[in-house]
Amino acid sequence: MYLGKFHSIEPPYQVSQDASLDWLSTAHHLAQNEQSHTKEEYLKMLHRVGCSSQQIQQRYFFVPDVGEHDWSQNKIYPIPVSKRGVSMHHRHEYYHKIVQDLFKQIYDTRAYPDDMIHVSCTGYVSPSAAQLIALKSPKPVTVTHSYHMGCYGAFPALRMAAGFLANESILGEKRSVDLVHTELCSLHLNPEESSLEQMVIQSLFADGCIAYRMSHAQPDAGFKILSLYEEIIPDTADAMEWMVSDWGMKMTLSKDVPSMVGTKIREFTERWLKTRGYDLSKLQKNALFAVHPGGPKIIDQVAHHLELKDSQVEASRRLLHRRGNMSSATLPHLWESILHDDNVPSGTQIISYAFGPGLTVCGGLMEKL
Amino acid sequence: MYLGKFHSIEPPYQVSQDASLDWLSTAHHLAQNEQSHTKEEYLKMLHRVGCSSQQIQQRYFFVPDVGEHDWSQNKIYPIPVSKRGVSMHHRHEYYHKIVQDLFKQIYDTRAYPDDMIHVSCTGYVSPSAAQLIALKSPKPVTVTHSYHMGCYGAFPALRMAAGFLANESILGEKRSVDLVHTELCSLHLNPEESSLEQMVIQSLFADGCIAYRMSHAQPDAGFKILSLYEEIIPDTADAMEWMVSDWGMKMTLSKDVPSMVGTKIREFTERWLKTRGYDLSKLQKNALFAVHPGGPKIIDQVAHHLELKDSQVEASRRLLHRRGNMSSATLPHLWESILHDDNVPSGTQIISYAFGPGLTVCGGLMEKL
Repeated sequence: MYLGKFHSIEPPYQVSQDASLDWLSTAHHLAQNEQSHTKEEYLKMLHRVGCSSQQIQQRYFFVPDVGEHDWSQNKIYPIPVSKRGVSMHHRHEYYHKIVQDLFKQIYDTRAYPDDMIHVSCTGYVSPSAAQLIALKSPKPVTVTHSYHMGCYGAFPALRMAAGFLANESILGEKRSVDLVHTELCSLHLNPEESSLEQMVIQSLFADGCIAYRMSHAQPDAGFKILSLYEEIIPDTADAMEWMVSDWGMKMTLSKDVPSMVGTKIREFTERWLKTRGYDLSKLQKNALFAVHPGGPKIIDQVAHHLELKDSQVEASRRLLHRRGNMSSATLPHLWESILHDDNVPSGTQIISYAFGPGLTVCGGLMEKL
Repeated sequence: MYLGKFHSIEPPYQVSQDASLDWLSTAHHLAQNEQSHTKEEYLKMLHRVGCSSQQIQQRYFFVPDVGEHDWSQNKIYPIPVSKRGVSMHHRHEYYHKIVQDLFKQIYDTRAYPDDMIHVSCTGYVSPSAAQLIALKSPKPVTVTHSYHMGCYGAFPALRMAAGFLANESILGEKRSVDLVHTELCSLHLNPEESSLEQMVIQSLFADGCIAYRMSHAQPDAGFKILSLYEEIIPDTADAMEWMVSDWGMKMTLSKDVPSMVGTKIREFTERWLKTRGYDLSKLQKNALFAVHPGGPKIIDQVAHHLELKDSQVEASRRLLHRRGNMSSATLPHLWESILHDDNVPSGTQIISYAFGPGLTVCGGLMEKL
């Protein structure tokens, strides 16, 4: 099975990290009735615990609010009127409108596949934008929702896609599956929550949209998928949570996640590669490591525990710097950047990792064509 | 691929249809400040548009509220305190608690599979109960969420499961996939919504939980899967919607859904079976038709347009009568009942249909072992 035909859409609202932290500090100050802390105090906290502009230079959003200081203009966060922002229903209506536009943009120039997998953990509406666009296809497109798995969402979707292509006798002949990620993380902030944990989250996540195709046939440019693997790490269930809540989706995130993953990543990788017949020591020397840049520390941890050179995880760090954490859309953006990077020669093996609630750790081995 | 090892759990709260309509009429009366209509007027409306006790004898719930007239005891619908019921966050906390108990009950006596697919459109929490129970397994279990596809949810999950079993080179050797449906439809009522459309919904849906296993190896009792197929019907996107809203998940449902499906079901089936090399006319005579009993009329429509005998859809009608519409859990319950029905001989072919937002129509062909 092969991956190719990457097509990402840059969200229209680019905000420098410093401007986003400044906006967040005002948002918290207003949401707390201007009584708890001054804007400057919130900004100090955000600068202390949040991602700095050295780690994330800027973030892109499909929601125009972040950076908008005329609060009456804010679509999701009109804080003087509603401290938590608009209701869950309104957030989902906004999500659905934006995501329908994104699917239209993508399939305006793209041939329809046999199957479409819509990947998201930030908006659940059915019929989905994927189902609505599938109706425009001249031939039937089977649509599958791959929702609510968080940052590692690309992996279950890859497993599904590979299966849809492999079952001709039951599912009929399928030649191609499109995977389309639409993550609007910026819809799920809650300015009323001013804990340090929430400040980390608010400083980290961004929006992203990307489509790519899995096929039996080898594309001109892309990757060959060699192996996929997932495990849940014991005793880490409380470290990260993502659930449907009142004002939006609610995340909890322990500061220990990077070290929890770090201490397990070597044995996870050994267990995985050994059973599939691949040699870790060889890959450690020569492979590129596409680590989901959940945050700056997780890249450090993986690099440290696998004894990798900086150059082997440089693409991950660069993507975090350029785009922030776009949840499940991040890793596909990373693959797209590796595909377009002429310094990564054909034949390079790529180990990908992603992490999410469970804690779930996912690993993938691919080869650049 | 085979299906077997069905294991359903009967929810603890059994309420006769008449008692549930009576409870709903009081709920509406209280939620409307007792001003709009009398309880008797609401009951009359519910009896006119809702499912009667001839169609649905009783429903089962994991939520104890339906039928509970001491409103201070209601866990989700304490109407005198909160007209819409408790918040989305509380509903999800309740869902997660119940569903964790269900997974514990199931795997208390059941061997762990290689993969677990959790199917639901009524609660999204991660780590999910499936991820938490997977950690109890002596060997790693890969967990996949198959969420937010509605009543036809068994079909995408079957497609996923078949794929996970078919990709040894990429995913490693897998022998078995458990599909576990947990649908708590009763969590998503809104007593404040007293439209006739909502009354139909409120009179129809029930709760259900069922697990079953897909495997390469033929089980002692079960089904052989021959073919799976899905289509979205054009121009029906507005007929049914399921989205995350403020107080819970919000459903819209046009009264025309049965006729929309009915007028398309014959050509859908012809298109499907022809491309896969099966003979509709033969199946029309001899197969059992496991029609998702979305409501009484949809069974009538399918039977009429495919010219089926009453006996061919009798199992669907019986399940609706006994359990109501349990969303995605309904069809697996129907398969379980067919499996245990000694009047259905080994070798019987079974055509299954399910319907949901899109409108999506799914078809499956299986053979009883």
